[in-house]
Amino acid sequence: MFPQEAAPGQGGRPSVNELAATRVADLIARAAELRLGVSRLDNGVTVIDAGIAVPGSVAAGMAVGEICLGGLGRVRLAADDGAGWPTWLEVSSPQPVLACLASQYAGWSLAASKEEAGGKKFFSLGSGPARALAAREALFEELGYRDRAPTGVLVLEVDRPPPPVVVDKILRDCGLEPAGLTIVLTPTNSLAGTTQVVARVLEVALHKAHELGFPLGDIVDGSARAPLPAVSPDPGVAMGRTNDAILYGGQVHLTVAGDADAARDLARRLPSGNSRDYGRSFADIFRDYEYDFYRIDPALFAPAEVWVSSLESGTTWHAGKTDMALLRGLWLEQA
Amino acid sequence: MFPQEAAPGQGGRPSVNELAATRVADLIARAAELRLGVSRLDNGVTVIDAGIAVPGSVAAGMAVGEICLGGLGRVRLAADDGAGWPTWLEVSSPQPVLACLASQYAGWSLAASKEEAGGKKFFSLGSGPARALAAREALFEELGYRDRAPTGVLVLEVDRPPPPVVVDKILRDCGLEPAGLTIVLTPTNSLAGTTQVVARVLEVALHKAHELGFPLGDIVDGSARAPLPAVSPDPGVAMGRTNDAILYGGQVHLTVAGDADAARDLARRLPSGNSRDYGRSFADIFRDYEYDFYRIDPALFAPAEVWVSSLESGTTWHAGKTDMALLRGLWLEQA
Amino acid sequence: MFPQEAAPGQGGRPSVNELAATRVADLIARAAELRLGVSRLDNGVTVIDAGIAVPGSVAAGMAVGEICLGGLGRVRLAADDGAGWPTWLEVSSPQPVLACLASQYAGWSLAASKEEAGGKKFFSLGSGPARALAAREALFEELGYRDRAPTGVLVLEVDRPPPPVVVDKILRDCGLEPAGLTIVLTPTNSLAGTTQVVARVLEVALHKAHELGFPLGDIVDGSARAPLPAVSPDPGVAMGRTNDAILYGGQVHLTVAGDADAARDLARRLPSGNSRDYGRSFADIFRDYEYDFYRIDPALFAPAEVWVSSLESGTTWHAGKTDMALLRGLWLEQA
Repeated sequence: MFPQEAAPGQGGRPSVNELAATRVADLIARAAELRLGVSRLDNGVTVIDAGIAVPGSVAAGMAVGEICLGGLGRVRLAADDGAGWPTWLEVSSPQPVLACLASQYAGWSLAASKEEAGGKKFFSLGSGPARALAAREALFEELGYRDRAPTGVLVLEVDRPPPPVVVDKILRDCGLEPAGLTIVLTPTNSLAGTTQVVARVLEVALHKAHELGFPLGDIVDGSARAPLPAVSPDPGVAMGRTNDAILYGGQVHLTVAGDADAARDLARRLPSGNSRDYGRSFADIFRDYEYDFYRIDPALFAPAEVWVSSLESGTTWHAGKTDMALLRGLWLEQA
Repeated sequence: MFPQEAAPGQGGRPSVNELAATRVADLIARAAELRLGVSRLDNGVTVIDAGIAVPGSVAAGMAVGEICLGGLGRVRLAADDGAGWPTWLEVSSPQPVLACLASQYAGWSLAASKEEAGGKKFFSLGSGPARALAAREALFEELGYRDRAPTGVLVLEVDRPPPPVVVDKILRDCGLEPAGLTIVLTPTNSLAGTTQVVARVLEVALHKAHELGFPLGDIVDGSARAPLPAVSPDPGVAMGRTNDAILYGGQVHLTVAGDADAARDLARRLPSGNSRDYGRSFADIFRDYEYDFYRIDPALFAPAEVWVSSLESGTTWHAGKTDMALLRGLWLEQA
Repeated sequence: MFPQEAAPGQGGRPSVNELAATRVADLIARAAELRLGVSRLDNGVTVIDAGIAVPGSVAAGMAVGEICLGGLGRVRLAADDGAGWPTWLEVSSPQPVLACLASQYAGWSLAASKEEAGGKKFFSLGSGPARALAAREALFEELGYRDRAPTGVLVLEVDRPPPPVVVDKILRDCGLEPAGLTIVLTPTNSLAGTTQVVARVLEVALHKAHELGFPLGDIVDGSARAPLPAVSPDPGVAMGRTNDAILYGGQVHLTVAGDADAARDLARRLPSGNSRDYGRSFADIFRDYEYDFYRIDPALFAPAEVWVSSLESGTTWHAGKTDMALLRGLWLEQA
């Protein structure tokens, strides 16, 4: 309906790294408040520890979530016991495609062998604005977006700093000087880690819409929420919970341009309930597939409940539903 | 109870245009993010397009809403499916009378004939802070408020820029240099347009309180919420929905000074349910009155449910109720 | 689990007075908007009147709440009628122990005799960041925290300015120059007063956790909400309401490190329902104890419902429940 480039007088699309830069500066300024560790590598790259040697916090995870969204979205905390769970994250974006897919999506594969990484293999799927500087993923061609900025920030869901060989690759691919790069480390089993992953509830919907072949340029606005689970000390359990939070508790409202029937079709096919694997905890599903991630039905990775509003017809299509009883069973005990 | 002028050490009442100026600057700085178009007329007046040639966004509509409130209120997005609709706007103000009536209310009639407007008649009810510079409406005498500021901002719910004759009138009546005026254009059938109208839920209550003869100086605080409907491509349907959002989904909490019985009376008479026209969609009512706006019962324009807290007695009076089933019936389809 | 000092690269714990200073400056800048009075004593101390000669506002109370939290927490307004009351406060903090106990808790006893106070005895329990400069309370030794800053801010729940003898004591104990001290005055029976007390819902949980002997260093994150009652003109009733808001409507979610059984035990013992005095309004309880505060069961001062998430086990323990029917009975009338 509208060209994504349309912003007369502003020279087109925003730079996710430029928008994120002020938020990175703010995160560093609030390090003591948010219980973060800030250090510099020998080469001058800034590393923010959000939960390895420091406790971090939910507020830190929310700030990291907004950085991941490239400054193009908001992450809010909401207290609401209406559904039997006390703490929720709300996410919204006026540019969900750029915010979620060009920036927040964990799609940049960064690996180093045992030898390269000093004794222990390193692997992480990089997320956040710097992906759009490197644009190493095929997705960027589809998005028709590539960022240029003197600074960049990348978020890694890891429990140790990346080895120099990975840092060097990031700098090279992003075309950044070391002083211009910030890397944020958020272990899944930390407060900030769990929080910033649940803040991907809108992104999960965008990713599935893309998988379903929905034209991304037609997605013009989005908001979402999901319950924020407690951190588990076990990284596997922690990961399972963040998935369950979205699959069984995630609610997403998209506004789309383009064909009204396509909007209805998107609503029908988007919710996690369409998956053959729906109905059990992610941990159980993963175990039943013998921990082979690729045997899981990709259709499972979706919010539980969706509303898709069509700009063409004005209709809002509703589909799916949350299963808070399942989440309460997994997460909650009466004291 | 308290004089509205009371702010010792601060020289009285705030300037809605001065408070709005920083928000206008922020809106312009975020134009690419919020999908706005920013341009200048030949004479130097700044025009922000929030949904004509550009898509705009819900976030843009919220920012325009805060500008309309003259910087004296907040507009927040809330995800809440408790009432069967996913997306809500919350509005609050520490100065609801100035924010809503001296600034946000769409009360400044701006018209140009076919000849003056270059071939097509122009009409719009201007809203926002610049109204308080011009003070052309009788309401300002009642409010005893007139703003003076070197900059001003006016919001027009239109689908084309105002003709030069209207721009010149605005400048003249406001006593502004062209470089000091910003005009924001928000078509009803746009994301920002629908959003900024629903953000008037508190204003609708203030306006009706005024119609009921409640002493405005006694209204000391206010908060409200309403469901945010999907945009309809049809301007008439879009307008109907924003009305329905408030009439059937709007909830308002006012705190009032003065006589406690007057507070109870206000609560009783305020809700839309007092109107003989209550119970059908605005579109149906409008059609039944053959699209003659002035045949609609003015008592209809009110929030569905209200709480009025009396500072004199400490009682909170509750009246009215929302009809979310009606709204879901109008707005929602199962996919 | 984590040392509270852990913030590598940032030199340890944040200064609650430094973090609050920007918020105090903002409060003063927004005085006209928030209906505050700002003045200077002869000696140069800044006094902010949030509800004595001026009306103040809910928004002012929220800002004062964030100042009380030493800049280490957020206070938000939420509209939610799900529980039959329209207006709620939400509070969250990445450092609940420092925010609530080292800063927000009203623990600094400030008194002046009739003679010293110019004819009328003065008494107030000072709260907010300046407490941590003076560190006159035994609590600070336990917290192992003492702030140093060139500016300080203290909040007093009073209906008149403190006498010079008290101001001098504050300056002396805090080691501040008069120009560096700001005192905020918030009568209980004012909008800002009621608001900033209800914003203590998280602090009440922290205080009781401390009373129960739970190791404070293990409390790593917290969020909470409580309904915001209408102000009563009667200070006693107003105080009763803020207590009831927390005792019967308060909900708190804590994340704790350390022993998982201790987390469960905390959840069990934390809610107000454990108190023998639970079930009647604070006003009734107080009256029945012949207005002798110290006869009230201290276990009563707690949120109604709690969730305690253990970082050790990953379990969230749930206990207690709200009694919104009791609050509606006390606060609400059908108009």
